[in-house]
Formats: sequence, C-alpha cells, structure tokens
Amino acid sequence: MTDLLAPDEAPPALIINEMGTSPLVLICEHASNRLPKSMGTLGLKREDLDRHIAYDIGAEGVSRHLSNLLDCALVLNRYSRLAYDCNRSPEHAGAMPEVSEVFEIPGNKGLSPSEKLARVNGIYHPFHLAIGQLLDQRAVHKRRTIIVTMHSFTPVFKGIARTVEVGLLFDQDESLAKKLEHSFPGFDTRMNEPYSAKDGVMHTTAIHGAARGLPSLMLEIRNDLITKEDDQRAWGERLAAAFKGVT
Amino acid sequence: MTDLLAPDEAPPALIINEMGTSPLVLICEHASNRLPKSMGTLGLKREDLDRHIAYDIGAEGVSRHLSNLLDCALVLNRYSRLAYDCNRSPEHAGAMPEVSEVFEIPGNKGLSPSEKLARVNGIYHPFHLAIGQLLDQRAVHKRRTIIVTMHSFTPVFKGIARTVEVGLLFDQDESLAKKLEHSFPGFDTRMNEPYSAKDGVMHTTAIHGAARGLPSLMLEIRNDLITKEDDQRAWGERLAAAFKGVT
Repeated sequence: MTDLLAPDEAPPALIINEMGTSPLVLICEHASNRLPKSMGTLGLKREDLDRHIAYDIGAEGVSRHLSNLLDCALVLNRYSRLAYDCNRSPEHAGAMPEVSEVFEIPGNKGLSPSEKLARVNGIYHPFHLAIGQLLDQRAVHKRRTIIVTMHSFTPVFKGIARTVEVGLLFDQDESLAKKLEHSFPGFDTRMNEPYSAKDGVMHTTAIHGAARGLPSLMLEIRNDLITKEDDQRAWGERLAAAFKGVT
Repeated sequence: MTDLLAPDEAPPALIINEMGTSPLVLICEHASNRLPKSMGTLGLKREDLDRHIAYDIGAEGVSRHLSNLLDCALVLNRYSRLAYDCNRSPEHAGAMPEVSEVFEIPGNKGLSPSEKLARVNGIYHPFHLAIGQLLDQRAVHKRRTIIVTMHSFTPVFKGIARTVEVGLLFDQDESLAKKLEHSFPGFDTRMNEPYSAKDGVMHTTAIHGAARGLPSLMLEIRNDLITKEDDQRAWGERLAAAFKGVT
C-alpha cells in the first residue's frame, strides 16, 4: 500500500495564529479543494473540484479575515472533504462519499476497508489530534475557549434553491446561536438550517465542544455571498463585529 | 523533562479480544491502580493506592468475565486515574486531581502546564486514539457497535453512605439504559445515579458514542458488590444475561 500523503505533502491541519488572544477558536474543516497526490482527481474533471462538493467556497477567506480582525486561532484543513470529510465520523456514509449531491465520485466507489482506514489514519485522526492539542494548550493555561466551525453551503442543492443565507447550528448548546440570532440584519438568518445535528453533520463541535464542555457553534454562510474576495473581507468584518458583542 | 512512560512501560490501552464478535465494546478507563514509574506514588501511602481514589475496584474483573462470556472487545486502561483520568477532558479539574474525595494527592499539586501536557499526551490521547482506531476498524467493516463503559463507585462518599447499587448513566441517548432498568431484580438500580452527564463524567461516551452516532451507556456498580473474585464472576454472568436480552 502506498502512503496516502507523499513525503513532501504537508499534514492535514494548518494552524494559523496559534497563540491568538481571542477566546474564539475557528475551525474550517472544508477549507480546501486540494487532494493528496496519491488520489489524483478521484476520477472527477478538474472543474468539478472547483464546486461545493470538494470544499466550502469562500469559508477559508472569511475565516482568515475574522482570525486577523479578532486575533483568533484558526485551524484550516489542507485537504478536500472528498478525500475525507473531517466533520464526519468514520461511521458516517458521507465521510468518504461515493456520491456528493448529484455527483458520483469514481475514486471513492467501493473502497476496501484498508483503503478507508488509510484515509482515516492519514487525514481524520491527525486533523483532530492537532485541534485537540491546540485545545489542550489552552486548557492547561486556563484560557477561555469557544469553538466556532466555519462553513459555507451551496445556494442550490439537488436542484432546489435555498433562501436561507446564514445558518447558526447547535446541538445541545444553544447559547451562542441565540446571542447571534439578530446580528445579521438584512440577511435571512436561521437556527439549525440548512442542516442540523440530527443529520450527523456536527462531528467537530461534538468531539471538541460538547465532549470538552466548551461552548460551540457551527456557522454556515450561503456561498454566493462570499465567492469574491471583497465579500469575504466584508463578511469577516461583519462577523468580527457580531462576535465582539457576544463573546 | 523525563518521559512520562519509561521505554519498558506499556502504552495506556490494553485491548482484550479485539476481534470479539459481540456488538458490545467494553471500555474500562479506571481498571488499574498502577502509576507510571516516573510518578512514584504521587506522595501517597502505598495503601491509599488500593482505594477507590486510584481505580474502580472490581471493574476490571467484571469486565473480563463479561468480555469472555459475550465475546466482546474490551479496552482496559493500564494506568491509574490519579495519573490522568481518561474519562475527563483536559479542561476538567478532575483530569489530574489535586484532591480526590477527601484525599489530597501531593504529586498532583501545582502541576505546571508542561507537566500537565506530558500526562495528556502520554496517557489521554494514546488511550482514546486506541479506542478510536478499534471503532474505525469496526466501522469500515460495517460492524454494529454499542459502547459500554464499565465503572464501580464507592459505597461511602465523603462520609455519606450510598444505597444505590447499580447506576445506568446516559446523556442524550437513553435507549439502552431504559432497556436494562429492570434487569437486576433485587438490586437498587437507578438512572443517572450516583453521577450524571451534568457532572462532566461522561467524556468517553461523548467522544466515542455520541460524536460517532453510536449507542452508549455508562454502567456503575457499587464496589462492595464486586470486591471479591467470586462476586466479579457472578456480576459478569448477571450482566451477560442482561445484555443478551437487549442488544
């Protein structure tokens, strides 16, 4: 079996501003559409890797601006969710999806148990261990921590247009979402839309937020609002103002 | 800084019957009262290490019998909760307790951040990674999994006698606890006693159960019922019969 990552390929977690002074820790599991070289294009056309199926368009840009403005630590994933979706546990059918939205992913079809484990061990565990160790550092220095996972969603899903523009997702811990409910005037902001914890899509906040007793939130922005760099900057500023008032 | 574990000391997780055919995966975080050699006795008298503060008396014996009777995988922790309590996140004051029940733990007083991180990285992360990888194996082979953590509690806590004999603890997922509620006739069986998730004592089921979407339960037996080997065997048989009916 060849290694999942080549010796010159970086580990999954890229930590920006590790010593940031904000209580917020931003996590962007779907920052990148890059695939490990060993996977080629997973049988997809190059242009399909620019779609939402491969990554959360705009989420990295918004996250970097927010990290910069509020001095937050930010964890980016260097690899595409098509290689391994780090916001899904290995039990979840979407962890290494054979179909994403309406697109078949040829390179994910019929993976053997050992091929799946190579991705789990090459991407999933190192990514979450890096987050865990960042949180450990803060814990032993008694620093306050609030987890915010940064996402974007596609305006049209399986042919149906979505009107929601900002989603505030939570599982058991609604406190931060409630505080932000009216922070985005003029934008259609909803709780637990377009997804919710019931869909099994809040794995990161479950392991690093709920299980550690840390407040957490999963933030979703419709990606047509943040496709352009200027819009990413504007949303970074909007979020910085919103979080300043509530954290 | 010396290493937490010497080269001749085994890693924290001891996995018994890894390929067991039962859907149950048993986890015993507090199986052992052994301390890594580098910690000496943490300033305690030898005999204090035989108390509940150091480990869950009888839990390993019961777990081994149950594992044997139902052919379950079983994960034992080789080190005492006084070194690191693997059912607590690093944020929790009880993870490396300075005081346990009424006993001061001199060797845990005033640990520096780097001393704490050495325990987190030497015990906590390897223990939970080993469990995670056991669960990954089952996931990629599409095996059904139910997590049961195996504990015992002290009959007298801070001078107050406890009448509860069996505790069935759950957080969001009550299904398995409800099924077992009447499985131990003649024993005082209660839900979410003598502890509950609100006390932050269900870290293992949170990360390996809830976050993975797997059913889970934390089982607590009062330790005076399982101090002797014969009683451990009898409780292994009693639990095997109970779980056979509900899993």
